[in-house]
This record gives sequence, structure tokens and C-alpha cells, in this order.
Amino acid sequence: MAKFMDVHSGFVGVTAQQLKEAHEADLAIEKDEGGHFERAWLDPIAGEVFCLASGTTRESIMRIHERAGHPTTEVYELPIEV
Amino acid sequence: MAKFMDVHSGFVGVTAQQLKEAHEADLAIEKDEGGHFERAWLDPIAGEVFCLASGTTRESIMRIHERAGHPTTEVYELPIEV
Repeated sequence: MAKFMDVHSGFVGVTAQQLKEAHEADLAIEKDEGGHFERAWLDPIAGEVFCLASGTTRESIMRIHERAGHPTTEVYELPIEV
Repeated sequence: MAKFMDVHSGFVGVTAQQLKEAHEADLAIEKDEGGHFERAWLDPIAGEVFCLASGTTRESIMRIHERAGHPTTEVYELPIEV
């Protein structure tokens, strides 16, 4: 499994509850696509969300988010970490 | 302590060893600024680096990276996470 970070913009003013619901929408379907969303972090002033996930391909990560209702094309594969 | 994600661009082709050295340069001075860099992830094809840190202010995070030789202004404060 590869690791990925994806970025969403435009989430200005989103609440903790709303982020939790969006994350749960990913979790509910991620197995279909062979991925897993581990964590998500939100800057509600800038409106940026960062999601850390594992999966088979960038496309699988994009499909999960798209099906869950919050698509993004900004998905980075992370073979190197410290 | 607040949590932050910062983003660096232009790290195309950077190796695991180079990322480790950059991270260690942050760790060596971070206490001066009251911050701590927890993890960093690299996409060496897109050249994007994501750093997860804790600290007092955005400015403290920016100062650590600037003093360590890899400045960025793209620093997000993350009061909400799942």
C-alpha cells in the first residue's frame, strides 16, 4: 500500500462535526476502492483540508473522495517520510 | 500548543537522506522557537513536502524553517482534526 496526502480547498468555516461527517463518508466506502483514510486536518480560516491515506493508487484515493461527495485532484503520493 | 501543516514546493528528486537531513536541521533549532516538527512526507515526483508540527504561532513555524534553510510561507493552523 502506498501513502498519500490530498488537499482540499474552500472549506472555510467548516466545523469539527462537518469534518467528522465528511471523514466518515470516506470510511463508509473506502474498502470498495482498496484505500483507507487515516487522518484529516482542517484550517477553517484558510479553508484547507489535508487528508493522510493509504491505498493502491492515486486514482483510488480520488475515487473515494469523489464518491463521498468531496472530490479533489490534488493527491500526492508519499514514498518518503521521516 | 497549536498544530500546523506546512507545504514546500520544488523538492523534485529529493532523496530520503536529504529529507532526513532537512528534518534534522529543523529539530536542531526548534526549541529556540518553541516548536516541534513531528513528521514530514515527500512526493519526490511532484516535489511537494508536507510537515506536521506543533508550536505557538504560524510565525514560529516559519522562523524554524527559515533558519534551517528551507523557508515557506504556506503554513496552515489546524485547530480541527479527525
